[in-house]
Amino acid sequence: MIDLTEKTLGVKRVFEGRALIIDVADIELPNGRRSIREIVRHRGAAVIIGERPDGKFVLVYQYRRSIEETILELVAGCLEEGEPIEDCARREMEEESGYQVTLIEKFAEIVPCPGYSEERLHLFYAKISQEPGEQNPDFDENLVTVVMSADEIYEAIDSGRMIDAKSIAAWLLWCRKRDA
Amino acid sequence: MIDLTEKTLGVKRVFEGRALIIDVADIELPNGRRSIREIVRHRGAAVIIGERPDGKFVLVYQYRRSIEETILELVAGCLEEGEPIEDCARREMEEESGYQVTLIEKFAEIVPCPGYSEERLHLFYAKISQEPGEQNPDFDENLVTVVMSADEIYEAIDSGRMIDAKSIAAWLLWCRKRDA
Repeated sequence: MIDLTEKTLGVKRVFEGRALIIDVADIELPNGRRSIREIVRHRGAAVIIGERPDGKFVLVYQYRRSIEETILELVAGCLEEGEPIEDCARREMEEESGYQVTLIEKFAEIVPCPGYSEERLHLFYAKISQEPGEQNPDFDENLVTVVMSADEIYEAIDSGRMIDAKSIAAWLLWCRKRDA
Repeated sequence: MIDLTEKTLGVKRVFEGRALIIDVADIELPNGRRSIREIVRHRGAAVIIGERPDGKFVLVYQYRRSIEETILELVAGCLEEGEPIEDCARREMEEESGYQVTLIEKFAEIVPCPGYSEERLHLFYAKISQEPGEQNPDFDENLVTVVMSADEIYEAIDSGRMIDAKSIAAWLLWCRKRDA
């Protein structure tokens, strides 16, 4: 295949907020033309399908200011600096949902927004406790957990009620692997 | 369910680049606490599954500077100002791939990155011509088209070779609808 790699001529930081960092890269295309690429810097995140011993799954409803809607999502959260990704997955499940993780395994890696974000999503399947302990979300995380059967998750996806791309991709990918 | 809606106290624009615009919203949580939300502004985009009369599909390999990789994706592109979303889908398929669209229909709407972007993705299925005409991508769009069978797309997804969340979600959603 043709090599499409863009040569980076320079990068400058143009915004550094509390959560978002934006860099602008000057690049040279394979045909010699120059352009710029604006990029959201991101450490990456874990997305976790958590299954209880009774075969039900724990998800969250979370208010997302970006789209001004409360949406249904898998449990997920960002990597902390220097944190191994599996520790992040375990921590996010325990903090956000209160459920204890008894087994966890990574099954895929995807990118949610390659047009402008370097974010990588590490997808995990976890076995979790039957009952939650105490939740311990970040002070401004605004969510409630919900327990759903596999059929209810499929219904949410097929009806268009679940609109979160990472959750749809993670769930359908995992079901394919499980059923393979 | 508990109302998780966050009250917006004010919004200020902190970065305006060529493609990215960042706003910071001061918000009040349902519990009265205050915080901020940094948001990527975005007009939205169309993602198109294009099928030829021979049952093969047209996708693209695109270099993504954000992740410094060339990845396999469905044809997609951003809405222009004031453009109806179906016109955008048709335009992007014709410009990026060169194939003519003979029928197009929207089948779902998803969000790729609700944690920090307002982007909405409108998912389309299109019937396209058997042979491409001339491609007419943006001057700095850096991609090549590829023709694949449904089995080859499934293989790319299951093997982890296709990592683009929107393409995985769109393809698997559409296959569920088609097979329903």
